[in-house]
Amino acid sequence: MLGAMSSSQHDAVDIIRTKRDGGCLTDDQIDWVIDAYTRGDVADEQMSALAMAILLQGMEPREIERWTAAMIASGERMDFSTLSRPTADKHSTGGVGDKITLPLAPLVAACGVAVPQLSGRGLGHTGGTLDKMEAIPGWRAELSNDEMLVQLEEVGAVVCAAGAGLAPADKKLYALRDVTGTVEAIPLIASSIMSKKIAEGTGALVLDVKVGSGAFMKTEADARELAERMVALGEAAGVRTVALLTDMSAPLGRTAGNGMEVTESVEVLRGGGPADVRELTLALAQEMVLASGVEGAAEIDVEQVLDSGAALELWERMIAAQGGDPAAEIPRGEHVAEVTAEESGVLTAMDAYQVGLAAWRLGAGRARKEDPVQAGAGVRWHATVGERVEAGQVLFTCHTETAERLDRGVETLAGAVTLDPQAEPFTRSLIIDRIGR
Amino acid sequence: MLGAMSSSQHDAVDIIRTKRDGGCLTDDQIDWVIDAYTRGDVADEQMSALAMAILLQGMEPREIERWTAAMIASGERMDFSTLSRPTADKHSTGGVGDKITLPLAPLVAACGVAVPQLSGRGLGHTGGTLDKMEAIPGWRAELSNDEMLVQLEEVGAVVCAAGAGLAPADKKLYALRDVTGTVEAIPLIASSIMSKKIAEGTGALVLDVKVGSGAFMKTEADARELAERMVALGEAAGVRTVALLTDMSAPLGRTAGNGMEVTESVEVLRGGGPADVRELTLALAQEMVLASGVEGAAEIDVEQVLDSGAALELWERMIAAQGGDPAAEIPRGEHVAEVTAEESGVLTAMDAYQVGLAAWRLGAGRARKEDPVQAGAGVRWHATVGERVEAGQVLFTCHTETAERLDRGVETLAGAVTLDPQAEPFTRSLIIDRIGR
Repeated sequence: MLGAMSSSQHDAVDIIRTKRDGGCLTDDQIDWVIDAYTRGDVADEQMSALAMAILLQGMEPREIERWTAAMIASGERMDFSTLSRPTADKHSTGGVGDKITLPLAPLVAACGVAVPQLSGRGLGHTGGTLDKMEAIPGWRAELSNDEMLVQLEEVGAVVCAAGAGLAPADKKLYALRDVTGTVEAIPLIASSIMSKKIAEGTGALVLDVKVGSGAFMKTEADARELAERMVALGEAAGVRTVALLTDMSAPLGRTAGNGMEVTESVEVLRGGGPADVRELTLALAQEMVLASGVEGAAEIDVEQVLDSGAALELWERMIAAQGGDPAAEIPRGEHVAEVTAEESGVLTAMDAYQVGLAAWRLGAGRARKEDPVQAGAGVRWHATVGERVEAGQVLFTCHTETAERLDRGVETLAGAVTLDPQAEPFTRSLIIDRIGR
Repeated sequence: MLGAMSSSQHDAVDIIRTKRDGGCLTDDQIDWVIDAYTRGDVADEQMSALAMAILLQGMEPREIERWTAAMIASGERMDFSTLSRPTADKHSTGGVGDKITLPLAPLVAACGVAVPQLSGRGLGHTGGTLDKMEAIPGWRAELSNDEMLVQLEEVGAVVCAAGAGLAPADKKLYALRDVTGTVEAIPLIASSIMSKKIAEGTGALVLDVKVGSGAFMKTEADARELAERMVALGEAAGVRTVALLTDMSAPLGRTAGNGMEVTESVEVLRGGGPADVRELTLALAQEMVLASGVEGAAEIDVEQVLDSGAALELWERMIAAQGGDPAAEIPRGEHVAEVTAEESGVLTAMDAYQVGLAAWRLGAGRARKEDPVQAGAGVRWHATVGERVEAGQVLFTCHTETAERLDRGVETLAGAVTLDPQAEPFTRSLIIDRIGR
């Protein structure tokens, strides 16, 4: 068809057809399509067709790198070069019970590294870091860039909401992918995560790429490909980047729910808490310290810093700097129910999705962006994978602020665990591999 | 993500993911997605992602059949069962210089078959049948359904505009595919064509599936697959369907342009005209007569009917019935230029796309749906593929009603033909194969 479309529509269709037919997009094509999509000259229906073509035909590393750069160029970039200390950031691909940011940010800051942890709210069955922090009375997520810089210089760690100005192309594309079945494309996942992190201006980045039934990447091969792609994107942009592949076949720690996860994080900062949360916090912290290049990095033992109480002290200063009261009681839903084991055996599997869904139904998550969340809703599990339980023992405790949500939460947990009467107790290793220099 | 989308968005995403991952859609999924898309509950960006997944992953025959049925069910169906004679319709996948409908409809009607030829206008470099017919002074394309039935009963042939009520899902989807790089999916092409033709209510259908550089299907394998798919869809819906694969490596006949093609068609109806137009008209007419099952079909010799003058007489009645003056002079653009051969040789190739583009630039086609077209603009070629030409001989004559368009038309034709001084003259066969019972 000739002339039936405007010239920019012609360009868009050419680009879609090139990728559809398995070709590579040129730098100019990528720059143009991201810019035109951000401006609205490429329509949603064109971008979703392109996203599907990318999902099914793939992208070469150099295309992914350019795509990421174009998304960064669509918005503003932050600059931490005026700080007196180096920066390091962490990104997790997400999972049920993943509260690692909470103990990790103050621990790394206590080692002399600035940690600018720009975070989001949750949607669906995995919670958002800001939702968790907001369970702390008085704490506020919104900081100006200047406030953030001051806090990074004076305290060393910030957990706050990402401004709307970073990688707006990614924001628009992410929302589109969510409703068009095009989320699961490794090139698009890698460029989405890395465009935001690079635009945030961190000097070093440690990625926690989760694998397993409770994670976005179900297989180790997919998780490894995503990790390798992201490490390459970070290094190409001058950000020292390392990824850990970690096991997410069961939910992390012992709790899922905003306030309950804050409490669990403080236990870790006090030297206790679940073994898996402590293990992962220490591993990620050690990588962040090393990647940051902070003076004496090689000699810093993050476990010693944690056990010294320095990280807990930094947590309290970080909370107070954002209006929170570190000594305040964390809300807990007054309506409580328990789920008990019907037989004895070793817990061989716990379905992270079901656990997350239960917490969501109890009120910990939101169905729509504008919905509120309950600080006090959530699930605690009293046994985890590899442990032996006896018939009648409590497996889960459910909390909610709304009585009528209790039954649905309890129902969701029926069948969330697999008990094997023949199996022997076992331990699993959380960290599968490390990818990076 | 849980709960972030409405349930119908969930259904749409499930359907997209199923096809994306190479699965088959169920009857219920297909019925739902076509209906919801027509109603606007499935968004354009979701349908374009699905169309891309269909293009790259394909569809099983039973999925295509159901998809076609769902598009038919999205609108009204016409009914010709009250007519005293059987109906037969023709569809061509389109090409430059394809005016076959004009001599074909009256020829088949002169054999006792009713020919309800619902047609469209052109967009881009291939002309539309209605645009051609509108070059006849007074002729009108819009008929009510009742007027159409009366004319079919009394005259036997109608060429008119298709109502908006037939397969509205297809109309919406076709426009979407055009701007999202998803036109070239055989399941979607087959279902688009057949949903309209089946909804029109014809009893028999003959398909002219064109192959070659000037056609939509560039390879014989693709054209054959499309033809087989469409024949199967027609037969499954109770429409006797036959397809001819025909060569479109060069434009058809000797003219491209609205009025010029009417004149050429009338030459064919008078027993003359270009050999290829006559050959294809007779072949398609014979198939339509046989497929219609009209009384004595096996004994009807369409060539004899054409040469008897009965088809010409029917043409004149058909034109007059729609307000046209069959004796009126057909407009011809007063601004004329010629393109001559630079060397001697046998014409081994003529680029149909370039010839169509030249006619379009001279004013025969439109850039936007609402643009007017010139009745008098177009291109005549004085030699066609296989013929020997001498240096200095006129190859093309260009006509336009707008002087300033002349140069662009002429320029477009430079290089449209390939001359080989060594080659011997040859003839080519237009009809490659026949598919159907």
